[in-house]
Amino acid sequence: MPGFGDKIYDFCKEIFPINRSITGDGVRETLQLIQKKLPNLKQYSIPTGESCFDWVIPKEWNVCDAYIIDPDGIKICDFKENNLHLVGYSTPIDAFLSFDELDSHLHSLPGQPDAIPYITSYYNENWGFCLSHNQRRKLKKGKYKVFINSSLKKGELVYGELLVKGRSKEEIFFSTYICHPSMGNNETSGPALLTFLAKYISSIKDPRYSYRIIFIPETIGSIAYLSRNLKYMQKNMQAGFNITCVGDDNNYSFLPSRSGTTLSDKISRHLLKNSYPNYSEFSFLDRGSDERQYCFPGVDLPVCSIMRSKYGEYDEYHTSLDDLSFISSAGLGGSYSVYKTVIDVLERNYRYVTTTLCEPQLGKRNMYPNTSTKITKSLVKDMMNFLTYCDGNSDLVDIANIINVPVWKLFEIVKDFESAKLIKRA
Amino acid sequence: MPGFGDKIYDFCKEIFPINRSITGDGVRETLQLIQKKLPNLKQYSIPTGESCFDWVIPKEWNVCDAYIIDPDGIKICDFKENNLHLVGYSTPIDAFLSFDELDSHLHSLPGQPDAIPYITSYYNENWGFCLSHNQRRKLKKGKYKVFINSSLKKGELVYGELLVKGRSKEEIFFSTYICHPSMGNNETSGPALLTFLAKYISSIKDPRYSYRIIFIPETIGSIAYLSRNLKYMQKNMQAGFNITCVGDDNNYSFLPSRSGTTLSDKISRHLLKNSYPNYSEFSFLDRGSDERQYCFPGVDLPVCSIMRSKYGEYDEYHTSLDDLSFISSAGLGGSYSVYKTVIDVLERNYRYVTTTLCEPQLGKRNMYPNTSTKITKSLVKDMMNFLTYCDGNSDLVDIANIINVPVWKLFEIVKDFESAKLIKRA
Amino acid sequence: MPGFGDKIYDFCKEIFPINRSITGDGVRETLQLIQKKLPNLKQYSIPTGESCFDWVIPKEWNVCDAYIIDPDGIKICDFKENNLHLVGYSTPIDAFLSFDELDSHLHSLPGQPDAIPYITSYYNENWGFCLSHNQRRKLKKGKYKVFINSSLKKGELVYGELLVKGRSKEEIFFSTYICHPSMGNNETSGPALLTFLAKYISSIKDPRYSYRIIFIPETIGSIAYLSRNLKYMQKNMQAGFNITCVGDDNNYSFLPSRSGTTLSDKISRHLLKNSYPNYSEFSFLDRGSDERQYCFPGVDLPVCSIMRSKYGEYDEYHTSLDDLSFISSAGLGGSYSVYKTVIDVLERNYRYVTTTLCEPQLGKRNMYPNTSTKITKSLVKDMMNFLTYCDGNSDLVDIANIINVPVWKLFEIVKDFESAKLIKRA
Repeated sequence: MPGFGDKIYDFCKEIFPINRSITGDGVRETLQLIQKKLPNLKQYSIPTGESCFDWVIPKEWNVCDAYIIDPDGIKICDFKENNLHLVGYSTPIDAFLSFDELDSHLHSLPGQPDAIPYITSYYNENWGFCLSHNQRRKLKKGKYKVFINSSLKKGELVYGELLVKGRSKEEIFFSTYICHPSMGNNETSGPALLTFLAKYISSIKDPRYSYRIIFIPETIGSIAYLSRNLKYMQKNMQAGFNITCVGDDNNYSFLPSRSGTTLSDKISRHLLKNSYPNYSEFSFLDRGSDERQYCFPGVDLPVCSIMRSKYGEYDEYHTSLDDLSFISSAGLGGSYSVYKTVIDVLERNYRYVTTTLCEPQLGKRNMYPNTSTKITKSLVKDMMNFLTYCDGNSDLVDIANIINVPVWKLFEIVKDFESAKLIKRA
Repeated sequence: MPGFGDKIYDFCKEIFPINRSITGDGVRETLQLIQKKLPNLKQYSIPTGESCFDWVIPKEWNVCDAYIIDPDGIKICDFKENNLHLVGYSTPIDAFLSFDELDSHLHSLPGQPDAIPYITSYYNENWGFCLSHNQRRKLKKGKYKVFINSSLKKGELVYGELLVKGRSKEEIFFSTYICHPSMGNNETSGPALLTFLAKYISSIKDPRYSYRIIFIPETIGSIAYLSRNLKYMQKNMQAGFNITCVGDDNNYSFLPSRSGTTLSDKISRHLLKNSYPNYSEFSFLDRGSDERQYCFPGVDLPVCSIMRSKYGEYDEYHTSLDDLSFISSAGLGGSYSVYKTVIDVLERNYRYVTTTLCEPQLGKRNMYPNTSTKITKSLVKDMMNFLTYCDGNSDLVDIANIINVPVWKLFEIVKDFESAKLIKRA
Repeated sequence: MPGFGDKIYDFCKEIFPINRSITGDGVRETLQLIQKKLPNLKQYSIPTGESCFDWVIPKEWNVCDAYIIDPDGIKICDFKENNLHLVGYSTPIDAFLSFDELDSHLHSLPGQPDAIPYITSYYNENWGFCLSHNQRRKLKKGKYKVFINSSLKKGELVYGELLVKGRSKEEIFFSTYICHPSMGNNETSGPALLTFLAKYISSIKDPRYSYRIIFIPETIGSIAYLSRNLKYMQKNMQAGFNITCVGDDNNYSFLPSRSGTTLSDKISRHLLKNSYPNYSEFSFLDRGSDERQYCFPGVDLPVCSIMRSKYGEYDEYHTSLDDLSFISSAGLGGSYSVYKTVIDVLERNYRYVTTTLCEPQLGKRNMYPNTSTKITKSLVKDMMNFLTYCDGNSDLVDIANIINVPVWKLFEIVKDFESAKLIKRA
C-alpha cells in the first residue's frame, strides 16, 4: 500500500519535531494533530498527584528554551535545534559552570560518536544535556553558561482514546505511545500508523468487534489507563496489540504476549509465517514496552506486538540517528498492511461446522472449477481440506494452520460454502 | 506367510478381469466370488434414487460391448480386451465420427505412453475411450465407427457386509472397495486381502471384539453405508481400517485418521515402527479414499490405513500398468500378516494392574529363567519393566512403547504374570 | 565443601570394613556408628518370618570365619582379609573337596582379572567364594579344605529411621541402604553422606517441611518399611531421594522417578542443569535401586536419585575395585553440597503473587541498584522478570526455569520484594 505509506510518512514528518514527553504541551499538540484526522478521538486528562495503582501522576513538564553557551560564546546543545539535546524532565537552571561542573550533566555515546542519545529523568529531579561524542570531545576548559527555561508544575497527564462500536461488546485493543520526542521508528511511527489504522477501523461497515484505540504516554500512561478501565477490558478484550517500532523497512519482529497463546499471538504468527517467513520471533523476556503492564500478572491482557526493527535491537535506537531517514513510506505502508490484515482476519475468523454428514456432493452444485489445472486442483484440495476441519473446534486460522494455507485463501471458500449452505457458524 | 500370499494372489487373479464400477453386474459377480469364501457374507442393495445424506444413489451402469473401428476396419479400444479402454459410466453410442469428433473423447497419458489410463465420469453423463499414447499417436484422419452397448438405468447399488459377533458389542471395522475395474494394487488387492482377513477373523474362538467387515463401492458406497449404520458405529467402534493398496511389495505406508490419535493409529504405528521402521507416514491431508467419509466432521470414526504403495504415490497408479504383475504373493502375504497382527494385538490389548504393592518376589515362584544369559537378562528386564507400568492407565501397546519392546514380546509375559495372579485386568 | 567432604570420607573409612548384608550384626554395627553421629536415630527390628506385602523377612545371616586351604596348605579367599571373598548369605560348610567340586562354587571375572566380584544368594540357600580371576587361574588340582563358619537362623531385619519435625506435616524423604559390604561408591558413600545430610537437616531452624530419613537394607528393607508406613508417606510426601553412588568425583547422573514430573525431579534437574550442565540423565528404565519399590504402581512416591557414577555404569561396580580409592573427599563433598542445595531450595520454593496491578514503581522505594553496570542491569532484568511471573501458578523453580536463571539467584530478590510488600506467598 504505497499510497498509505506516503500518507503515514507525511504525518510522521508533521509530528516528528514536537517535543513530546510523558506530560506537557507536546503531548497535547500531538493529540490535536491526531484528532484532526480522527474527529471522534476523545481526550482525557488526569491531574498531577492522582494515584494509579502503585504510581502517582507526576508533575507536568514544559520547556520554553534550553541551551549552553561555550567559553567562546557559541550556543551549543540548542533545544530549539533538536529537542533530544535536553534530558527529558530537566529542571530549570540559569548559571555559569566550569567545564568540570558541566561535564557530569552531559551524555554522549563513545561508540556512536555522531549520535545524540535520548535520555530522560522522569522520577529523579535533575537536569542534563545530550550531544554527539564528537561534539563533546571538542569542548574546552572554561566557563559555560547553562540555560534551561523549563517548568515542572502541577498539571495533568493527557491521553487520547477512540472507541468504535461493533456488533459485539467483545473488543480488539490497540495502544501506542506519544511520549517520545523527535525520533522516527521509536517513536513517531507508532502513533502515526495507529492514526491511519483507526481511520480504517472507523470505516469498517457494521464491524463484528468493538475497538478500543489509545494514544498514551508509555508506562505511566498505560498504568493510568488500566487503573481506570481494567475490569471492562479484562471482561471484553479478545485480542490486543501494542503498536511501536513500525516505521523502517527491515524484517518484521514479533514479541508475544506473556502466555504466548492468545488469539493475538495466533493471528500474528500465522500472518508473519505466511507472508514474512523470515521474521524474528522474540521471547516475552525481551519485552520493553507497554506489554510490561498489559501482561502483568493480574492484568493478563492478550497483548503482543508486530514490529519492524525492535526497540533495543537496532543501533539507531534511542538516538538522533533514529530520525525520519531511518523510517520510510515503504516501511510504514508494509506495517499498515500487516495490521490491516490482522483486523480483516479478526473480523472473519469464525468457527464453522459442516451441515452435511460425509462430504457433500459438490458436482451437483457446480462448485468444482470448470477447467482442471494445477491451480484448480490445488483449490479443490483446499476446499475439501477446509471442509474436513470444519468441526466447530477450530477457527479459520486454526484450520489454515492445519491445512497449510494462508487464512485469506479461505475467505472465498468460506463465502462459497456459506452460500451453498454447506457450512454454518458454530 | 507365503502360503496365504499365494492364496490371496490367486483370488486377485480371479477377480481381476471383472468390470467393476460403483454399480452394475461386475460388483454383483465380485461379491458372489467373495461370498463363496465367506458364506456368512450378507449382500444388500439400495435402489437408484434413494437419498444418502447429501447424495443420491445413481443409475446402475452395465456394459455388453464397446469398441472403435478405425478407418482401416481394425477394431481398437476393445472393452472385451481390457475394460480400462472404456471410460467408466460411458453412455451408449453407435455412430460414425470423424477423427476430430472422436479425439475429444479419447484419454491417454503422454508422460506414460504405454499405459492405458483409468477414467470415470460417474456424475456427468458422457462417453469416452482410454488408450495408450503410443496407440493414439498412430490414429489417422478418417471415419471411425464408435460403438458402446451400455445401459444407464434405474437399478441398485449393491454391497457386502459380514458381521462377526464377539464377547463385547465394541466393534473393530474393516472396509474395502469393489468399484475398481482391472487394476491390481488399486484395487483388487483390498477386497482380496480383506476376504482372507475376514476368514481369519471368523476363525477366532470367542473373540473379544465384534467385527464389522464391508465390501462397498468407494465414496457413494461408504456414504450410503454410513447413512444406514452411523449411530451404531459411532457408539461401538473402537478401531477401524480402510483396506486399500495392499498388494505390491514395496515399503509400507501409513495414512492416519483425522485426529491421528485413535487406537487404530496407535496400534498401526506401533506395529510399523517395530516391524518395518522404514515405513512412510503420510498426513491426513494426503488422504484420498473412504477415510474421507469415515473421518468427516460429525462422523469421526477412528479409521486409518496401512498400505503398501499408496494411491497417488506410484507411477502405475490408475493405469493399466497397475496390473497383476505390479502386485505379488509376497506383497499380499506381508500385508495380510500385518493386519492379522493388528487383530491379534487388538484382541489382547488390555490394561492391567499389579496385585502386589512393591515388586513381587519372583524367585519364590520360580518365575526367573533358570539360566542367566544375555537373552534371559533382557527377558527379566522386560518382565520387571512391564510390571512397573501396569498402573491401569496404560494398555499393552502404551507400555510396549514406554519400555521400547514390540507389544508381542509382552504376550508371554502377561500370560505368566496372569497365571501367577500378579496382575489382573484393570 | 572440602571440610565436609573430608568428614564424610573419614566416616566412609570407618564403616567400609564392616561385613554388611541385608541382615546380621554388620548392619547393627553400622547403625550404631551412624547413631553416634545422629543421636535421635531410632532403630527398629522386624523378626524373621514376618510378611511384608509379597515378601517374608528372611533368616538372619552372620559369619565368624570363612576361608579355603589349598592343596599346598595356603589359606586363600580369607573372609577376614576381604569380606567380598564370601558369597553373601553363604550356608556353613566344613569339608574337603576336589578342585572340580570346589570350582562350581567359585566366582571370578575373566574380563577384570584383578577384581574380586560381589555376589549374593539371599533367597536360594547356597555357598560360594569370590576371588580374582588371576588368583583362580593359579589354582591346581588337588584337595581343598573349605570352611565357612556362618549361621542362617531366625533373627531380625534391622533399620534406622530419623524423623525431623517441621512446621508442616508435609514430608521430604531420604533413603539409603546399609546392606553392601566393603565397597566404596556402592555402597558406603550413601549411608555416610546421608548421615551428614541428616545432621544438616537437624540443624535447620524451624524447618518448613518434616523430614523422614531412613537407613535400610536394599529391596527387602524398603519393602518392609513401606509395608509399615506407606499410607502416611503417600499422604504427606512432597519429594524424596534415594541416596546411592554419591562418592566418586566423576560427572553427576540423574535417575528420574517413574513419572519424571514430580517436585523431586523438577528441582534435581534445575540444579544439575544450572550447576553441572554436562550431567547424564538416565531413563527410569535404567533404574536398579530402591526407586523400584518407591515408584512401583500403587506406591507411586516421588523418589528420584542424583548420583555420581551410577550403579551398573562403571567398570568397578560390584567388585573389590569399588574401594576407598574409587571415592574421594571431593566427590563426597560435591554430592553433599548438591543435596544440601536441594534441601535449601525445597525450604524456600514457595509460589508468590504480586500485590500490585501493573509493575510497581521501584524508584520511589530505592530498590534499583545505585550504579548502572552490566551486572546491575542484569539484576534489574531478573527482578522485573521474576515479578512478571509471580502469578501464583509457578513456584520459584518454575519461574527460574522460565526466566533462565538459577533459582538461588532469586532468593535475594524474593527477600527484597517481600520486605517491600510487593509480593506475598500464594
